[in-house]
Amino acid sequence: MIERLLPGVAWMRRYDRESLRSDGLAALIVTIMLIPQSLAYALLAGLPPQVGLYASMLPLLGYALFGSSNALAVGPVAVVSLMTAAAVGKLASVGSPEYLGAALALALLSGGLLLAMGLLRLGFLANLLSHPVISGFITASGLLIAISQLKHLLGVEAGGHALPEILAALVAAAPETNPITLAIGLGALGFLFWVRHAFKAWLTRLGCGPRTADALAKAGPVMAVAVTTLVVAAFDLASAGVSVVGAIPQGLPPIALPPFDGELWAALLPSALLISVVGFVESVSVAQTLAAKRRERIDPNRELLGLGAANLAAGVSGGYPVTGGFARSVVNFDAGARTPMAGVLTAVGIGLTALFLTPLFHALPKATLAATIIVAVLSLVDLGALRRTWRYAKTDFAAMAATIVMVLAVGVEAGIVTGVALSVALFLWRSARPHMAVVGQVPATQHFRNVLRHEVVTSAHVLSLRVDESLYFANARSLEDRVYTLIAEHPRVTDLVLMCPAVNAIDASALESLEAINQRLAAGGVRFHLSEIKGPVMDRLERVDFLAHLSGQVFLSQHDAMRVLDPVATLRADIGSRPPQSSATLRTGA
Amino acid sequence: MIERLLPGVAWMRRYDRESLRSDGLAALIVTIMLIPQSLAYALLAGLPPQVGLYASMLPLLGYALFGSSNALAVGPVAVVSLMTAAAVGKLASVGSPEYLGAALALALLSGGLLLAMGLLRLGFLANLLSHPVISGFITASGLLIAISQLKHLLGVEAGGHALPEILAALVAAAPETNPITLAIGLGALGFLFWVRHAFKAWLTRLGCGPRTADALAKAGPVMAVAVTTLVVAAFDLASAGVSVVGAIPQGLPPIALPPFDGELWAALLPSALLISVVGFVESVSVAQTLAAKRRERIDPNRELLGLGAANLAAGVSGGYPVTGGFARSVVNFDAGARTPMAGVLTAVGIGLTALFLTPLFHALPKATLAATIIVAVLSLVDLGALRRTWRYAKTDFAAMAATIVMVLAVGVEAGIVTGVALSVALFLWRSARPHMAVVGQVPATQHFRNVLRHEVVTSAHVLSLRVDESLYFANARSLEDRVYTLIAEHPRVTDLVLMCPAVNAIDASALESLEAINQRLAAGGVRFHLSEIKGPVMDRLERVDFLAHLSGQVFLSQHDAMRVLDPVATLRADIGSRPPQSSATLRTGA
Repeated sequence: MIERLLPGVAWMRRYDRESLRSDGLAALIVTIMLIPQSLAYALLAGLPPQVGLYASMLPLLGYALFGSSNALAVGPVAVVSLMTAAAVGKLASVGSPEYLGAALALALLSGGLLLAMGLLRLGFLANLLSHPVISGFITASGLLIAISQLKHLLGVEAGGHALPEILAALVAAAPETNPITLAIGLGALGFLFWVRHAFKAWLTRLGCGPRTADALAKAGPVMAVAVTTLVVAAFDLASAGVSVVGAIPQGLPPIALPPFDGELWAALLPSALLISVVGFVESVSVAQTLAAKRRERIDPNRELLGLGAANLAAGVSGGYPVTGGFARSVVNFDAGARTPMAGVLTAVGIGLTALFLTPLFHALPKATLAATIIVAVLSLVDLGALRRTWRYAKTDFAAMAATIVMVLAVGVEAGIVTGVALSVALFLWRSARPHMAVVGQVPATQHFRNVLRHEVVTSAHVLSLRVDESLYFANARSLEDRVYTLIAEHPRVTDLVLMCPAVNAIDASALESLEAINQRLAAGGVRFHLSEIKGPVMDRLERVDFLAHLSGQVFLSQHDAMRVLDPVATLRADIGSRPPQSSATLRTGA
Repeated sequence: MIERLLPGVAWMRRYDRESLRSDGLAALIVTIMLIPQSLAYALLAGLPPQVGLYASMLPLLGYALFGSSNALAVGPVAVVSLMTAAAVGKLASVGSPEYLGAALALALLSGGLLLAMGLLRLGFLANLLSHPVISGFITASGLLIAISQLKHLLGVEAGGHALPEILAALVAAAPETNPITLAIGLGALGFLFWVRHAFKAWLTRLGCGPRTADALAKAGPVMAVAVTTLVVAAFDLASAGVSVVGAIPQGLPPIALPPFDGELWAALLPSALLISVVGFVESVSVAQTLAAKRRERIDPNRELLGLGAANLAAGVSGGYPVTGGFARSVVNFDAGARTPMAGVLTAVGIGLTALFLTPLFHALPKATLAATIIVAVLSLVDLGALRRTWRYAKTDFAAMAATIVMVLAVGVEAGIVTGVALSVALFLWRSARPHMAVVGQVPATQHFRNVLRHEVVTSAHVLSLRVDESLYFANARSLEDRVYTLIAEHPRVTDLVLMCPAVNAIDASALESLEAINQRLAAGGVRFHLSEIKGPVMDRLERVDFLAHLSGQVFLSQHDAMRVLDPVATLRADIGSRPPQSSATLRTGA
């Protein structure tokens, strides 16, 4: 029973020293990576640095108790931090207590929504985010985040949530650029790019083993943080105008419910929903990728519970919305994390940092944090996906391009809403004009194929129309149109067979259309038949009196239909041009 | 050329005396029916009575020049009048010049939208209104209209656009009931119900021919109007508190553009869109039903142009939104209307009425008009459709019930938006969990069927999965889940065949999922094959490098796949249990 409520305890039973050693090492590496990240993403969200640390403690415990992934590293991530800034920035100004309170409320709301979705098994909602929309959203958010961090590299004040605003503010503020800040920022940026792209190869050439080289490369941001902090502290560059993180309160997170304010919560609800869905999609795709590598399975509904618990914990412990991060989870996995205990130990590591190490970050320049963000998010930008998607399907490309343009021009929320709405609309538009083909019999087989694509035998008075889509409200009328046009073009036809092998459902609107077709054809002396109706569709048709009114019959196969309606033509097609060998070939299975 | 711009002129060329006589008779009957209706529907829309007359002149000419139906009678209708009252009532108070101006602007906007939809060939947008949603919307609107008219029967003032408001206002105002008004109203109501349900049978029993009986029954509202007007005038009941139509300005409609006010127009735009779509759907379904009876065709895009021209005309000639009315069009058709000239002549008839007859309506009690509305709209109420839809499909029932509840509880606009959104959501939800079946070969045939429904032969190491839905973003992940679960359940399997005869499209998200399946199966030593892929789907797959990475093959038919992957089992199934007669039976076509 307790295992159903707290799936976390399942792994605890079998926990041993070996697992602890493995999880401990992974937790140490992730903690070192997470410290600068949590400070940087809090900065991106417009929040004080300690909020990033708080969001990296209790939320990790919450996920460990309810989540289903052994390797997912939960905490602050770039895209959700940007969405938090956009949502909270509409309601309060950065730095105010209201801003902080709204971020807490957003985490709590988001946690509540994720839990509710998990309990109601609504994980499938995430499927509405199509792959091109997510890909476009991540790319555009990455660009937006990178550009929004330029102000920290320049050492100027500049706000804005969409590209035009941000660029205008940057241009206006550029003359105020602090040259020392810019030097530190560009230095950190150059170093981090070099670490990411050339450091490993260089270490290997120096004779370093590949695992050590990898671990040292991952420590790049920590090195940048250490070096620039030391430089700023040594030369007291803060008094020369270099913006630094400053005093971070020492201690564990405050445990308190965020202020309840009905109006505020109502205003945050749409943003909380978007953040929940985006965070869930990002998290679950990372978790699934990693689980597959070890042949483990992820339960999306349990992921919803785990992320819900994590965000509720963030909301009551001074944090802000969190989710599973991509890069951090991969590091956790590669470093050997075996169970959620790795996350628990990471939380302990961040807790020790918050208790004892925060004075070390006093002189940490914000420009360095901005540089780590820029390097991290630019790796998410994949403009090549635009080209690949264009080649495969124009509708998918349209949804992707619209998402990118809206994220950049208007903002993250407008982007995601536009992307989802457009992909649904394009899907309906496509299925509203289904592929339909007049078919004939392929000689010497029982197959019926499109008369325009194949050499087939057709009947003079029986017309067979295959419809390649479920029949529902959006396409019912186009079926009617096609049938009436066909009948008008073929005045000698006495029977129309609607061939339905690809009709997976017929809704009430389509049923009305079939009834209208049946009546109208009967009035014109044409019988209306159906063939190859799927089992579930037939079950449903039998519940109403449509089949009783049908002027024609229902045939199990199109071949049956043609044998009954035009036996002579069908017999000819069956034997007509069949070379005697071919049937023998078929029989022997060669 | 001119015929393309003004399709109206096509029928003008062949116009003769016989057609004129036929159209003239139909126009006379429709005019007599339309006079009380246009006054009543203006009352329902909260507009002065002459606005109803104005909306029955130029709009009819507009439709005649561009529309494609020979029998459609355009003008004020109940549902659109109710929607106008709801839309304009949000922005101005009844009786104010702003209210009138907003109604004009609404007609103009609606006309513009319809024209734009016609020119952009967006008629398919109307398909988003599924049959259950339209049916629920009409039923609920009918109930709402009938109840909203009770205030006129009681002779009291009571407002409100949704059921709770209207009922509360009625109950509050009930003590003010004017007994004479109530007597007139109930008398008219009883008479009209009797005319509709028993009068024709009574006339026939008196020896009246069926056509004459029919014509007399149609004249019921005119009789009720004439008798109650005479009674009120004779006894001067207006001074006893009976609310009457009063002075209607004599003359033709004023030709003027409505005031341009950007904010007002922006506020009206969503309502104008809903009115356009609902009006179009109502109109085009009437037009198609009537056209089919004479084997004529309706062009939905030309209907958009016709209705657009009609509403633009209404907007510049003192009217309000119009569309094709059901009852009136049927009368027009039955009375012999052959061409749009019948509409032109009806407009002339209403014009003569506006010029010369308006003083006759001075003493017409509003209670009589309310009674004609109630009788007309209650015939639209079809609660039985709820039961029929429940039996056929629960999802369609849910969309219908939600539409009815929202129309009654919140209002017409909330109802239609909820209905459309819910039907789209339910459609996505259904197609997000596609029917998938593991299939085996039916012995002695080349057919493959669901192993759970049929006695089939399966292979020990080849698993065949048929998916009965197009693969797209909403269901791509559930396919992945199903495949991984199947493979986990069947450890001996070396080959998986995805059978795609019902897959009409594969979008970019589904392509990603197929690539993931291919990679993950390959990592586990299972080859991934595809069979029976449709032509258009294959064309698209060939544009990307998916097929090059595919660990298995693409087979034209499932039987080909099994012959190659498990020749022995397939050979056995091909010949195994085939009774020698059955093949002979098949060949002779018996």
